[in-house]
Parts: sequence; C-alpha cells; structure tokens
Amino acid sequence: MSLSIETREQAIEADRNDPLASFRDRFVLPDDVIYLDGNSLGPLPRRVVDRMTATIRDEWGEGLVRSWVDADWINLPEQVGDKIARLIGAGPDEVIAADSTSVNLFKLLSAALSLRPERRVIVSQKGNFPSDLYIAQGLSDLLDRGHELRLVDNNNLIDTIDQDTAVVMLTQVDYRSGHLQDMAAITAAAHESGALIIWDLAHSAGALPIDLNGAGADFAVGCGYKFLNGGPGAPGYLYVAQRHQDAIKPILSGWMGHKDRFAFDPVYQPADGIKRQLCGTPTILSLAALDEALDVMLEADIDQLRAKSLALSRMFIDLVECNAAGHDFELASPRDDARRGSQVSFHHQHGYSIVQALIARGVIGDFRAPDILRFGMTPLYTRYVDIWDAVAALSDVMATSAWDKPEFTHRAAVT
Amino acid sequence: MSLSIETREQAIEADRNDPLASFRDRFVLPDDVIYLDGNSLGPLPRRVVDRMTATIRDEWGEGLVRSWVDADWINLPEQVGDKIARLIGAGPDEVIAADSTSVNLFKLLSAALSLRPERRVIVSQKGNFPSDLYIAQGLSDLLDRGHELRLVDNNNLIDTIDQDTAVVMLTQVDYRSGHLQDMAAITAAAHESGALIIWDLAHSAGALPIDLNGAGADFAVGCGYKFLNGGPGAPGYLYVAQRHQDAIKPILSGWMGHKDRFAFDPVYQPADGIKRQLCGTPTILSLAALDEALDVMLEADIDQLRAKSLALSRMFIDLVECNAAGHDFELASPRDDARRGSQVSFHHQHGYSIVQALIARGVIGDFRAPDILRFGMTPLYTRYVDIWDAVAALSDVMATSAWDKPEFTHRAAVT
Repeated sequence: MSLSIETREQAIEADRNDPLASFRDRFVLPDDVIYLDGNSLGPLPRRVVDRMTATIRDEWGEGLVRSWVDADWINLPEQVGDKIARLIGAGPDEVIAADSTSVNLFKLLSAALSLRPERRVIVSQKGNFPSDLYIAQGLSDLLDRGHELRLVDNNNLIDTIDQDTAVVMLTQVDYRSGHLQDMAAITAAAHESGALIIWDLAHSAGALPIDLNGAGADFAVGCGYKFLNGGPGAPGYLYVAQRHQDAIKPILSGWMGHKDRFAFDPVYQPADGIKRQLCGTPTILSLAALDEALDVMLEADIDQLRAKSLALSRMFIDLVECNAAGHDFELASPRDDARRGSQVSFHHQHGYSIVQALIARGVIGDFRAPDILRFGMTPLYTRYVDIWDAVAALSDVMATSAWDKPEFTHRAAVT
Repeated sequence: MSLSIETREQAIEADRNDPLASFRDRFVLPDDVIYLDGNSLGPLPRRVVDRMTATIRDEWGEGLVRSWVDADWINLPEQVGDKIARLIGAGPDEVIAADSTSVNLFKLLSAALSLRPERRVIVSQKGNFPSDLYIAQGLSDLLDRGHELRLVDNNNLIDTIDQDTAVVMLTQVDYRSGHLQDMAAITAAAHESGALIIWDLAHSAGALPIDLNGAGADFAVGCGYKFLNGGPGAPGYLYVAQRHQDAIKPILSGWMGHKDRFAFDPVYQPADGIKRQLCGTPTILSLAALDEALDVMLEADIDQLRAKSLALSRMFIDLVECNAAGHDFELASPRDDARRGSQVSFHHQHGYSIVQALIARGVIGDFRAPDILRFGMTPLYTRYVDIWDAVAALSDVMATSAWDKPEFTHRAAVT
C-alpha cells in the first residue's frame, strides 16, 4: 500500500476512502487536539463511559459484594485475557490480565530463570524500556546467584545469545525509536541456544499483527493503556505458552491464583493453567474499562490497522523531511516499514521545547530523553488530515521559533 | 458506652441519637438490603460517582495524557497514601497506595528478611489470611535459604518470637473470628527479640483507631476495598516506618519507584523515601475511587466509629444469642470488646446455607469455610435498626428452615 499525499485536499480524500474511518467516532477526542500520543495513553472509547456507569452504579452500588458472582467480576481477568489473546496470536487460557507490566515481568522472569537453573545470563536490548531492566536487576539482586544482565545493540542480539543464556527479554517495539524486532527469528535463535524468551508487547499489541504461538514464544507481558485504550494505568497482562503453564510455580503466589480460592487453605496450591498467575484481588474498575475498550479494538481488522499505520507514518516522515528540512530533524525510526512499529520519532537537540510548543498548539506528541520527539500513529482514530495538520503545526513552530521561549521548558512528560 | 436495646423502637431511638447518623446518606445502599458485608466490599460512596465521571470524561477524555500533570495523576499514590496515613497512625510520606495487598506484602517481607539476613524464621498466625501465608511460602521458595514459616495460635504468639525470628507477620484483625491483636504489646515483643514486624491492616484500618507510629511498628500493608470503601479490587497500600525507608532496596524495582522517572536511566536508583515502593504505572481509575472514598471516612471521628461498632456488635451478639437460642450458634468472635475487631462471627454446621438464605432475604453477610457466618459492623452506614432487622431475619430463617433447601447451596462466596 502506498499513498502519495501532496495537498491537504488529498489527505481529506484519503480519509474519505479509509475503511477504518468510522472508528474515530467511537472515541472521545477534543476538537482542538491532534492526538499523536495514543502510544502513551490511548483516548477514551465512548462505550467505556456507559460501561463504567454500569459497573460503578449498578454492579458496585446496587449489587455490592454479590457482583463478584452476579456480574462475574471474579472471571474478569480471564475474560480480558482472552480478548487480548486474539490480538497477540495466543490461544484461549494463555493470557490473563493482572497487575502492572513490571510486576508481570517479575513473575515471568523468575519463572523463566527457574526453568533454566544452570544458566546465568539474561540478554536484553540496550535501550529497552528501563522498567524492564530494573525488574531484572531487582530479581538478580534478590536471587544473589550471579545472574548477568547482558545488554546489546539490536544488530548484535542474535549473535549474543549463547549456551549461557537463560532468558532473552526483549521489547518488540522500542519505546523511543519504534524499532520493530523480528519476533519469529529471534525466538527461533533463542530456542536454538536452549534459552527461553519473554516479549514485552507494550508498544506493539493492538498496533500490528502479532503471532506469539506462530513464533513459538515462551512468555510475554504487555500494557493495557497504550494501543489497547484501557485507561490511565490500566492493568497489564501476561502470556504463558500452554506447554509451560503447569511447570511454573508462581513466586507471587496470592490467593487469587490458588487452586481453590474459597477453601482458604493455609498451603498454596497453584490453580490450573494461566489462572495461577493471578496474585491479589483484581482491580475491577480499571479492568472493566480495559475490557470494554478491547471490544472496540477487536472490531477492527488488524491488517487494515497495520496498513493504515504504515501509511500514516510514511506520510509523516515524508512531510516532516520535506517541510521541516533545514531544521536539523534526524529520523530516529527505521525507514523500512518492516522494521518500524506504529510511531515515528525524530532526534532534535531542542526536542523537549519543540514538543511543548506543539502541545501548546494542540498537537500532542511526546518527548523522550535525551533528544527524541515521538509521535504515535494510531489508525483507529487518527486521520490523514491530522498528520497533514500536525506537520503544518510543526513547520509553523520551527518558523516562528516559539519552541525557543522559556514557557516551554517547565513541563514533565509521562510515558 | 453501653446500650440496652430490647425493642425495635429502642433501636430506632438509638439511631436518632447516633452522632454518625448523617453518614448513611453519603452512601448508595439499596432499599431492600441490610449490608453486613462492608468488611468484604465497602459500598459506593455517593461522591465517588461524580469523581469518576470527572476522572473518566474530563481528565481521561478531554485531558488525555496531559492529565498526568494537569490532574496530578502522577502524585495520586502519595496523595492517597497520605490520607490513609491519618487513619493508621502513620506520618506523612510513610504510606503509599499501590498494587495489591499481596504484592505489597511481598515487597515488605523481602525487605524485612534482607534487614535480618542471619535469621531464618517468619512467625505468623495459624488462621492468618491465606494469601499472606502464600506470599511467605512463595518468597521462601524463591530465596531457597531455608526460611521457616512458623504458624502459631494467638495464645502462643509472643512466646514463640525468639532470637531466630527475622519477621513477625500478623493480621491485626482475624478475617474469620474478628480477633483483634494487641499491636503495641506484640510489636514490643518482636523488637525485644530483635525481630521486625509487619502488620496486615486489611480488617482493621478504617474500623478502629490504629497507631503504627505509637506502637513503633516497622511495616504494614492493607486493603482499599473493605472498610475504606474504595471499590472492588481497589489498590492496596503499604507503610514503611521512616527509619527503615532508605535502608530498603526494592526488589520489585519498577520505573515509578526510580529517583528520576523521566530520565529513563538504564540503571535503577531508588527514589527517596516511600516513593521507591512504587513499581509500575498506578491504576488511576481505581485509585481515584479510593481517593474520593477516603474523604468520607476522614470526616468521621474514629473514636465515635469504634464506639458505635462495638455497640452494634454487642447488640448483634446479644440478640442472636437470645433470639436464635437452641439453634446451635456458637460465637466465634471474642466477647471482650478490647479483643474484637469490627465484625461478629458465629460457628454453625449449616453456616453456608444459612448465609445464602439470609442473602435471599436481603441480609448480606458472608460465609467463611469451614463453618463461619461472618457479619461486618460498619458504623458509617449501618443502623441499630438494621442489626435488629438482621437478627429478626435470622430468627425467621432458622424458624422456617429455608436454609435447608437445596437452592441455597450453589453459590460461591467472595472475601
């Protein structure tokens, strides 16, 4: 798929022909905003408003504690997990929603290390999302068995995996550059060396086709509040391939993961399958929002989403390089569609101030230290004309040097 | 404070004189329900409805990612923690809301064990909430250093604490019997033996005066969805005494607990103070509900709450023992006010069926295996007349033997 958009009218025409165009109305999007930050926090799906009213007023307010059964709260983690499974190439009962991405990574990394007790190396990317690295550092310190966290460039990843490697722990799409890893090839390489693999899907699930089962992946974690639009701090999720499920004795062994929760057995016995990965009581309000948001996502065709995402990002790259030429932007994302996730990033020494100047004009992207301007491509609700207007705003910012003013230097950014 | 209520009219009179009476209207309570299960799931505070509308429609919908700063989402865990601190005798910056109770216990138990590396015994109660015991089992298995989980009767607790004890890990109010531990005495005994102490406040915070600082407690965890009325699966919280905060290197080391979250430093460096106990991104929707619910709780005088709670539970015990005499109920809760939390429990061999028959009549208590009928006393919204009517319903159930019918044997109970 290729689009050649050289005028605003052509962008509007492309929107008119967009098979995903009707999805935009399913979201609350302020009129004065062009939102290119759905990879940080997805917008509010309209149907979530009604769902939350029902969950809060009817289920909690009127149903009270009875709603654990009557509204089936008790099975919400599996229900949400099964929906996510359809987006990431997993089977039923292989995914469950729970806790945060970082806590889930702790569970799976400890599980993976226990399955490779004789090996001591964890391979990951330089530039992986820091929380993933911190979790590996914290677990290694706790275990105190000489595990090494080996961080390498993307180019050297496969060569680095060796007979000492217990686990390869990678984020599929880099949160800064948008670099997309080859899941199938790297998973195969890990297995060839006898290592296990954990994929972090935070910046890929809901944005592009993922086939965990097809790749033979062992484990995965991901995030509910980015492309899945589950709301601020939505619960994370985790995937455990069927073949590993019964071999894992959870470390974060809480009562929700017990074989018989309401027997109140003083001795932990893991539940069958993926359910043992639950720990404490699930956060129903946040889970309900995610559950409802997923229904919007699941109506869309993921191949259409991917095609439009790439079209939007190619258009964005072309327009920036054409319109902001001479302003020292350097593309930080892969130019190759096959290696780019669903975002476009540029380096610029004044990136922080430029992002703030754009936000002041209603174009919301974000900044990532040290010098990255990051723009998420979210084809469910972003139009071609939004890309056109966003780049027009950027050109204007650069022309007027508003980004150089002091009022744009005092805000914090949030992933 | 003592009340002698022998007629329904006297109960209504007691409600008329209740200084807490006005709080009932602050909650959504269905007309056809007498709710004696607020120690499992607190009811919906009315103001939470508006807060959630604002958080969802305005902050998420209109504010989008900007609300991390503009709506101060980023500081919500500390804000909620500071409110809870006022209920449990903790100082500012000693409490933070995050994750689940079980995950928080994992954090603090691993911290406590690291502070007593030469000791190998964890002392806890037989009959402690199973999830707490599971967490200790999971952590011990992970560490594989020969830790022993020593479970003892309440009578033998203090005598069991010895020079081998690393940590005493107790729930202040027993979830089944309602037995209230002597926090000051046991904390002192633990310290005398050189052990640390972790209190689980799930069934006590919001129900009775707690003074962690006064007792010199080291650590505590607790739950947001029982007496704090924070909603189904509301986030938990944890307390770390100021003197320990900088000595703890978190094991669940996530990006929200980093010294400089947005520097995206590849190496974990803990934030100052209690903030290092954060791990992943906080669940804002669930946290907002808890935050708002706490404002209702904080308006009430905790000594008045405690006095009314004890009056309600004495009345309940008296009425059951008088009206259901001959039906084999055996009091499972301490008769001594000073040793009873905010619930009344009875043993009965047909407890499960009786609870279901009561629920069918709108009197909601719950059942705990093997034979406990549990009734929560929640003086913010429970009236004396509710206690009267609940016992009348119980008498009626016992007289009509409805509890013996098969339709009352197929529901699951939820803590």
